[in-house]
Amino acid sequence: MRISIDEVKRIYKPKVKPIEWRDNRLIILDQSKVPFETIYVELHTPQDVADAIRSMKVRGAPAIGITAAYGMLLSLLSSMSKVSDLNDALRVLENAKRIMDAARPTAVNLPWATGRMLNKAKSSISNGSVRSVKELVDALKAEADAVFNEEYDAEIAMGIYGMEKLNNGDSIMTQCNAGGLATGTGLGTALAPVKLAKLMGMEVSMFVPETRPWLQGARLTVYELVMEGIDTTLITDTAVGLVMYKGMVNHVMVGADRILKDGHVFNKVGTFKEAVIAHELGIPFYALAPSSTFDLTSDVNDVKIEERDPNEVRLIRGVPITLSDVKVYNPVFDVTPPRYVTAIITEKGIIYPPFDKNVNRVINGGGGYG
Amino acid sequence: MRISIDEVKRIYKPKVKPIEWRDNRLIILDQSKVPFETIYVELHTPQDVADAIRSMKVRGAPAIGITAAYGMLLSLLSSMSKVSDLNDALRVLENAKRIMDAARPTAVNLPWATGRMLNKAKSSISNGSVRSVKELVDALKAEADAVFNEEYDAEIAMGIYGMEKLNNGDSIMTQCNAGGLATGTGLGTALAPVKLAKLMGMEVSMFVPETRPWLQGARLTVYELVMEGIDTTLITDTAVGLVMYKGMVNHVMVGADRILKDGHVFNKVGTFKEAVIAHELGIPFYALAPSSTFDLTSDVNDVKIEERDPNEVRLIRGVPITLSDVKVYNPVFDVTPPRYVTAIITEKGIIYPPFDKNVNRVINGGGGYG
Repeated sequence: MRISIDEVKRIYKPKVKPIEWRDNRLIILDQSKVPFETIYVELHTPQDVADAIRSMKVRGAPAIGITAAYGMLLSLLSSMSKVSDLNDALRVLENAKRIMDAARPTAVNLPWATGRMLNKAKSSISNGSVRSVKELVDALKAEADAVFNEEYDAEIAMGIYGMEKLNNGDSIMTQCNAGGLATGTGLGTALAPVKLAKLMGMEVSMFVPETRPWLQGARLTVYELVMEGIDTTLITDTAVGLVMYKGMVNHVMVGADRILKDGHVFNKVGTFKEAVIAHELGIPFYALAPSSTFDLTSDVNDVKIEERDPNEVRLIRGVPITLSDVKVYNPVFDVTPPRYVTAIITEKGIIYPPFDKNVNRVINGGGGYG
Repeated sequence: MRISIDEVKRIYKPKVKPIEWRDNRLIILDQSKVPFETIYVELHTPQDVADAIRSMKVRGAPAIGITAAYGMLLSLLSSMSKVSDLNDALRVLENAKRIMDAARPTAVNLPWATGRMLNKAKSSISNGSVRSVKELVDALKAEADAVFNEEYDAEIAMGIYGMEKLNNGDSIMTQCNAGGLATGTGLGTALAPVKLAKLMGMEVSMFVPETRPWLQGARLTVYELVMEGIDTTLITDTAVGLVMYKGMVNHVMVGADRILKDGHVFNKVGTFKEAVIAHELGIPFYALAPSSTFDLTSDVNDVKIEERDPNEVRLIRGVPITLSDVKVYNPVFDVTPPRYVTAIITEKGIIYPPFDKNVNRVINGGGGYG
């Protein structure tokens, strides 16, 4: 019988807590210092939240959304002395949303989360369920907790589905950081199965490619896996092929930034090479992502692959590694065609090929296996 | 009609000269500073040569061999005042060989080159073709030049064969540095075809993966291609798949550290992933190496893949990128099975599958196409 989400919540405590609401304070792990220093920062105002997002202390789309949701709550708590009625409170919330939304204009989770909080305030006031500033604070605390818990529940669900693919002694390769640092919950998407498998007493280990240019594998994934006590081996991106060829891993599990209705998976650059080699060598390749990641309207050719600053390649942590003016191609993502994808694991179930039939059914129909 | 080696020598001058004998002096490019500084160093004694090898000012198996050959000549020239007869000269040469051979115990080209020079001295004396120290110097100068020219001629031959695979407008992906810096001639193996194609007036361009952990692609290959005026784009090792998927390259051309009689290619880690993806996408994959690279006796399972210091992965140019004590797997080479290899290009001709039949025929039979 499959373990339940509530049972996991009862027995699992993430070893890294990137975002925590404690005694009316928002405490975040400064991810810009990970893994070199473990520094927790207390945020008191929406301006603190905006600064933390801008300086990459908080990163990862879900983590930014959760932080901003609690930032809306902070806006009220930090100005209680100046807020005399619910109209004042709404003005404070609207101002907080403006301040935080401007911190990272491309992060869609940011205005989504602040908008959800503002709408909750407005609807609670207009339907009469909230009749004082004190009650509004309680309602917004519950809503921010819901933003966190919906994300966390989805990750646990993915972890439970993904864990069923693993056997005792297995080793898993990932890519980038699709972990609890990126999502803010401490669990993550692609890293959830291995963490839950360990919780269940299985012996499982991980191979982590460093993931140039930003080295999220070396910096973030290594950090959170080691903190969780999982047997972790760092490799260069060049060693991915040999590790699979030598049979050192049994599965590849990665996150996704966007998944199309026909099963094309857009994820951090380097994912495609893992998928092709895994396919060639008969190693299962899984993409793990919540249903919010699915784009059921775009065609693969509609999706533009973002390119970033050439200096991200020319320098590593500020140190030059090549000629200062050499031409660079620096794509952020790559695209893995459906033929290399064994299955897509979502909180609504596992989606198997043919994806053009099953993606839509599982994402819109919900529940069970695709 | 195919261009001849002599014709190429007449019209091609390498833009980078890693090793040059000029006016009785040995001048080398300090490769440990490339690409950040272009510094040429004059070597006067075998001790200078040993120091240059030990400090990685000279690197790459053929380059080390050539430098050591000229180092034997330097041993005589730098001690002419103390050498009164041919017996003295042999003692000087034997001592020089000892000093240089100890500089890098695993480099087989090093004792091979010094041994060849010493044997030339002994045989020239014993067969009477050399009867004075002055004549010995001339004989050894000719022998060191032969070591250089045999390497250079082989590279030109590979370049001519490889160039026939290229069309105007083509782009080529490589890996690591199989160029003129590694070989010492300024031309190289895997980079010879693109350089000669440019010489012939073709428009050709290169994609260079940075090649972690040592970043030979970013540091060395970028440097020598840019110096040659070739259109060069640096990419991370993670972008290799997307670049091929998007049709941005038409060929993959890499060097080789060892090639077995059945066509297994051992080369810098990361080569295997390029071969698998190229195969999957229908892009030709060529290994270029002189016949001295072939190991016609070992089985693939006999070859141990060397692992190096974990700190090569944990640090980049001295800067930490991960937890200081995370477990690391750091293999130097990987192995590409013959099914992913389109052809092997040697100075004796192009070898096509089936390799288990054709490798032996071309390498031992010599001449023409396999």
